[in-house]
Amino acid sequence: MGLVVQKYGGSSVADAEGIKRVAKRVVEAKKNGHQVVVVVSAMGDTTDELIDLAQEVSPIPSGREFDMLLTAGERISMALLAMAIKNLGHEAQSFTGSQAGVITDSVHNKARIIDVTPGRIKSSVDEGNIAIVAGFQGVSQDKKDITTLGRGGSDTTAVALAAALDAEVCEIYTDVDGVFTADPRVVKKARKIDWISFEDMLELASSGSKVLLHRCVEYARRYNIPIHVRSSFSGLQGTWVSNEPQGDQPMEQAIISGVAHDTSEAKVTVVGVPDKPGEAARIFRAIADSEVNIDMVVQNVSAASTGLTDISFTLPKAEGRKAVAALEKTRAAVGFESLRYDDQIAKISLVGAGMKTNPGVTATFFEALSNAGVNIELISTSEIRISVVTRADDVNEAVRAVHTAFGLDTESDEAVVYGGTGR
Amino acid sequence: MGLVVQKYGGSSVADAEGIKRVAKRVVEAKKNGHQVVVVVSAMGDTTDELIDLAQEVSPIPSGREFDMLLTAGERISMALLAMAIKNLGHEAQSFTGSQAGVITDSVHNKARIIDVTPGRIKSSVDEGNIAIVAGFQGVSQDKKDITTLGRGGSDTTAVALAAALDAEVCEIYTDVDGVFTADPRVVKKARKIDWISFEDMLELASSGSKVLLHRCVEYARRYNIPIHVRSSFSGLQGTWVSNEPQGDQPMEQAIISGVAHDTSEAKVTVVGVPDKPGEAARIFRAIADSEVNIDMVVQNVSAASTGLTDISFTLPKAEGRKAVAALEKTRAAVGFESLRYDDQIAKISLVGAGMKTNPGVTATFFEALSNAGVNIELISTSEIRISVVTRADDVNEAVRAVHTAFGLDTESDEAVVYGGTGR
Repeated sequence: MGLVVQKYGGSSVADAEGIKRVAKRVVEAKKNGHQVVVVVSAMGDTTDELIDLAQEVSPIPSGREFDMLLTAGERISMALLAMAIKNLGHEAQSFTGSQAGVITDSVHNKARIIDVTPGRIKSSVDEGNIAIVAGFQGVSQDKKDITTLGRGGSDTTAVALAAALDAEVCEIYTDVDGVFTADPRVVKKARKIDWISFEDMLELASSGSKVLLHRCVEYARRYNIPIHVRSSFSGLQGTWVSNEPQGDQPMEQAIISGVAHDTSEAKVTVVGVPDKPGEAARIFRAIADSEVNIDMVVQNVSAASTGLTDISFTLPKAEGRKAVAALEKTRAAVGFESLRYDDQIAKISLVGAGMKTNPGVTATFFEALSNAGVNIELISTSEIRISVVTRADDVNEAVRAVHTAFGLDTESDEAVVYGGTGR
Repeated sequence: MGLVVQKYGGSSVADAEGIKRVAKRVVEAKKNGHQVVVVVSAMGDTTDELIDLAQEVSPIPSGREFDMLLTAGERISMALLAMAIKNLGHEAQSFTGSQAGVITDSVHNKARIIDVTPGRIKSSVDEGNIAIVAGFQGVSQDKKDITTLGRGGSDTTAVALAAALDAEVCEIYTDVDGVFTADPRVVKKARKIDWISFEDMLELASSGSKVLLHRCVEYARRYNIPIHVRSSFSGLQGTWVSNEPQGDQPMEQAIISGVAHDTSEAKVTVVGVPDKPGEAARIFRAIADSEVNIDMVVQNVSAASTGLTDISFTLPKAEGRKAVAALEKTRAAVGFESLRYDDQIAKISLVGAGMKTNPGVTATFFEALSNAGVNIELISTSEIRISVVTRADDVNEAVRAVHTAFGLDTESDEAVVYGGTGR
């Protein structure tokens, strides 16, 4: 039995009862013979309460001090969890991100991990303790200041520690049973995925699935750390994310992992761009300089009669205003006709390995949307993903139609397997 | 202008408004040309809330984890204070006890400071920042674990930093205007003391005055750091505690500093102890082994007819049960007759330098009590203190009588000065 890293989110440790429940589960893993390292988030609403306090004393809380403040949240939950474990008769020690050796860059509020030196954690578990580590936080390499890792920080802490400690698995405990073939709130017949590859999980994460964040999956893939996403409320097996497939499915068949959707984006269309070299570059340089991240990009075929083309892209709604302002400034230089901004869109993505070599997948996808009466506005594809942009109003119907068309609904025993004759 | 250390207690930073008020005061000192280091306690009730949480998950919270938990409180207040100061346009950085170089032993929940290495604080203030330091906490020298300093820990942090940074003064901000000649809730005419020596302050602190704790004054005396105790709510000068007297009073005159009282103690009398060598030692060894701290000890003259004597001592009420149990076990070996336990007592102490060489002081003290009809049960004296034990019911009257007899009431322009012809 090797070492396991378990991560519990804020909803799992929201109150004393939750902490005691988590303590029992941690002790169970220890009793099963594992060395156990636990990463915890702050209790329930603690972080929001601290943010409120910060805004009462300062309208623009500063990076360094804001991090110092927020990290108090994990300090509370990890100390309480250690106490609760000791109360069950097992030894536990809690460690701050700094003590656990989570070394980051100096970008406060969204630091990136640059090294993990888990000497103290290693010693602690070798001495027989359960080690509890504060998620979401680290210490900057140059200034030795406390930093926080930003969104998904605790999951990333867990995976990074698992990599540094050569753990068997990183278990991410959450309030759902795992990763599903679609959002169960939209698709009642969505099915829990037993296993998914890192690559498919990355595509799902960047296509709107919220169970695991892209950043943490990316880290796990790089260091080949299997992730097991599961519920802290049930004892069920959840979803394994790893390199090695489970079961007997031939590798060259297209396995559809799931359908993701995302309504957080908006679409910008730059209308009437002169179709000559350098214009697109000028447009996207302006966007990049305003530090806006864009997602899908589509350029229509130029109309021969006018020599003009349209360029569309999607981006987070929150950054729409910034992007439009940046583009307006380039209008004279680029010479485009107008800008259209549309935040009533949705993105629907189908993710699965080997999709491109299986032409039937794309056809089935578009047929399903067409039969459901859903109009497609943009299309973008990768090796293992097809995404379309539709009207926001159509999103639920579109997701359900695609989910059913690919046999992902729970009535069928297995997902539909395409191809196998692709090459 | 040199460096000042300011310490603000939990009542001064109880909420966002309090933190903003403290920020203004800190900035004022900075504007006056000082380098400023600020030590803060946890906000108002934070510590109590954390203790409640701990007791929900574990009936006996453990030392190491309890410290990890409690130190979250100062982390919150110090980060908020730094933000509030920045919001006033000044640079501030907060530091944990560990970052500030507060090195302690490994006794969790009541660690003692063994070294202060304030390199980061020094650099921070040299760069023009206001440095905010978490009070009450440090890091253990051997294990690098987070520790807390126990009661009065934040005051001690402030004095220790002031010593290590060679500060001009350590300002202790509190919710009263300074140290008074008696508890103003008991003696309406009590007067704020402008200056008091370390020695007198130590005696007042161990006699029941609660404004400064013995531990912090002891530390300040050892490193000769002047303390200025003052209100964070008013701009008034408070009480200076230092080696050098203020004003023109001759050193050899007995200056009465004040009257302290303490109703937190109980009295134990061991009745009928055989008056032979070793019996008292046996009794106090038993007490010491049960880790009870005792205060006053009085042995009556042995009655020649019986060869038996009584031994009385006072101790904190909270430890009464433990002491009595320890003594009962020695009854056979010592052969005493019975034990009396009395928790309806009060201790009244008069503190002032040069008291012993001025016989009039003791006489005046006893006369005042006698005139007020207060019976004296035990007496104990030191170079600069007389303490008596009376009935708890008599305490207010006794304190007022003594305060008046020594001319400490505010009507008189000056404290009564005794002697001057003593030698």
